[in-house]
Amino acid sequence: MPQLNENFLKLEKNYLFINIAKKINAFKEKNPDADIIRMGIGDVTLPIAPVVIEAMKRGCDEMGAKETFRGYEDSGTGYDFLKDAISRYYASFGAEVKPSEIRINDGAKSDCGNIVDIFGNDNVVLITDPAYPVYVDSNLMCGRKIIYADSNEENGFAAMPDESVHADIIYLCSPNNPTGSVYTREQLEKWVAYAKKNNAVIIYDSAYEAFITDKEIPRSIFCIEGAKSCAIEMCSLSKTAGFTGMRCGYTVIPEELKFTASDGTEVSVAQLWGRRQGSKFNGVSYPVQCAAAAVFTDEGLAQIHENIAYYQENAHIIAETLNKLGVKFTGGVNSPYIWLKCPNNMKSWDFFDLLLEKIAVVGTPGAGFGKNGEGWFRLTAFGDRQRTIEAMKRLETLLA
Amino acid sequence: MPQLNENFLKLEKNYLFINIAKKINAFKEKNPDADIIRMGIGDVTLPIAPVVIEAMKRGCDEMGAKETFRGYEDSGTGYDFLKDAISRYYASFGAEVKPSEIRINDGAKSDCGNIVDIFGNDNVVLITDPAYPVYVDSNLMCGRKIIYADSNEENGFAAMPDESVHADIIYLCSPNNPTGSVYTREQLEKWVAYAKKNNAVIIYDSAYEAFITDKEIPRSIFCIEGAKSCAIEMCSLSKTAGFTGMRCGYTVIPEELKFTASDGTEVSVAQLWGRRQGSKFNGVSYPVQCAAAAVFTDEGLAQIHENIAYYQENAHIIAETLNKLGVKFTGGVNSPYIWLKCPNNMKSWDFFDLLLEKIAVVGTPGAGFGKNGEGWFRLTAFGDRQRTIEAMKRLETLLA
Repeated sequence: MPQLNENFLKLEKNYLFINIAKKINAFKEKNPDADIIRMGIGDVTLPIAPVVIEAMKRGCDEMGAKETFRGYEDSGTGYDFLKDAISRYYASFGAEVKPSEIRINDGAKSDCGNIVDIFGNDNVVLITDPAYPVYVDSNLMCGRKIIYADSNEENGFAAMPDESVHADIIYLCSPNNPTGSVYTREQLEKWVAYAKKNNAVIIYDSAYEAFITDKEIPRSIFCIEGAKSCAIEMCSLSKTAGFTGMRCGYTVIPEELKFTASDGTEVSVAQLWGRRQGSKFNGVSYPVQCAAAAVFTDEGLAQIHENIAYYQENAHIIAETLNKLGVKFTGGVNSPYIWLKCPNNMKSWDFFDLLLEKIAVVGTPGAGFGKNGEGWFRLTAFGDRQRTIEAMKRLETLLA
Repeated sequence: MPQLNENFLKLEKNYLFINIAKKINAFKEKNPDADIIRMGIGDVTLPIAPVVIEAMKRGCDEMGAKETFRGYEDSGTGYDFLKDAISRYYASFGAEVKPSEIRINDGAKSDCGNIVDIFGNDNVVLITDPAYPVYVDSNLMCGRKIIYADSNEENGFAAMPDESVHADIIYLCSPNNPTGSVYTREQLEKWVAYAKKNNAVIIYDSAYEAFITDKEIPRSIFCIEGAKSCAIEMCSLSKTAGFTGMRCGYTVIPEELKFTASDGTEVSVAQLWGRRQGSKFNGVSYPVQCAAAAVFTDEGLAQIHENIAYYQENAHIIAETLNKLGVKFTGGVNSPYIWLKCPNNMKSWDFFDLLLEKIAVVGTPGAGFGKNGEGWFRLTAFGDRQRTIEAMKRLETLLA
């Protein structure tokens, strides 16, 4: 067989959530009657909003009639009706993003993983630790040097730049996965200033922006002045509108973002990414784009906000329980995640095993997100209300 | 800005079909009333079969109800109901493919482009010329050495291996895009023998298999004995069932396919690809998978065969016209493409301009597919019947 990409051998053998799934399956085999409550993988549980389903079904009908059938998209970057809707959505929270700067994709994970393709391999990549594993793994796969910025108890799990360290590519995520922390405007301004000083690009993951309730917290990196010359943003409808099984997201690449090639010529990042996608992607299903556009109508926004409020109440219930138990945590406000310190200085995977085996509750071990995650544990608020209450009751009994 | 991936600068500035779209737009601006007939990009025109639309709408309804809502897929590789259906489909034309060897994706182009990630960059890549540009571009993007096997008039545009040349990764496509040629069983046996001798892997693009009418022509590389230890196959519902705007395809990675790492350990190709996709892909929209599964039911197959027969009749009409005009061509049988020799030794792009400007018919210049494509031109049979007839009338007037 041909030579393989040996960078893969440096990766953990399995993606974190596949490891968790295996542990759950093993537990289920031993305990077929166990009533497992899943608060591990950040997956939603409420159905898609009615107005969104109706729009998708209309899109299906269009695909079934010759006059309205749609084949390949001309651009492969998404239909204007959806880009226009997302541009207006950005404007609603103070970020100016042109429709032409938006690229529709099949979920933030795809672009977040594939964006590495357009960068050279000698760049220094800076990732906050703990972090969503995709940032680390996609860079390890192409053999890049990664440095880490520590997010920890001392800084409220909101790493800030170290002026003495140089980076070329910076991954930030706010509201943060896994820690639930959010960056303030002032903190993001410091990151933008650092990126500009280092001639670096920020890859900003805003997948959880819809959970921000505090009006002072920016919902996009493009709420920060100057970010358009140093940042790419990735967002998704997965958490905004329950699209984890529908698959639609978007990436914003500002017009003014430019590379300088080694021969001194300027190359537009958008054009380079377009060239990448032109060869390796073919756009998003038309009915899915119809569904996505319906999310951003007044009716759609009203319906998805009901779902978000439901999850926010779950987060509140989890936070109250932890407060009562005296367990430290971040998140739970402006975020669907609760990041808790394992009691009695337990290690993350030990606490995972304890919760699974004693009370059949599944969370995510913090250690799976990086070294600073050791001793911490992630719970999600995306569950069913009654199941969330039940899980907290079990937790109280276990830890009281 | 960070260092860019300078391999991109070696690429043609634009993907072929984006260049064509630009030429058409310029022509339309100058000739706003022109009645353009598009036979360029290989896009379908008939609507999706009714049974498929109904299945997709049922999938939408499931996503709208709490009891049946589906979030992330556990595996991200596709639902069993679809993999089982595709496995049975393979069996119907004599290829044994297990459901566990099938990975559902958002179209063959994605996997075909992304598969390069799991290979090292020192492999020798062999691509038949002319070829679908994605094979070349995705390898140039990671800086690999590409060698070409000539497909030309002498060999009926069906390149065969040169035993004196070594290759590690071999791209084959049958029925071929762009030439419409098909490999016989004996020819594919030779390619499999060559791959085994070279310890190479074949990446086999069978996107047009549904157009094969000749029962002697294999519809999958896995109809060939021994292929499962040396081949990966990529197929799509785009041409089989008109899914160009729906986005669903599948990749087969046989269980027995293994890499040997430099330290001598064996690594399963399926596992490596799973690790790649685990970090960079999140599965296909559930309603789209419902639609895809309906394609492979008895009713679905009956309905899509009507559409395929319609396109085959278009191909026949084009072929008859070319025969009448004394224009040489390959394809048109077992294939939706007709690959014709430009009259009067014209160059491909000159013939493209002639057809666009004189008769407002759009085809694809053969030169866009590689050096052996120069002087040749691709027409597709995916158009509307009346428009195809009209295009052929115009062509007769022009060339008579």
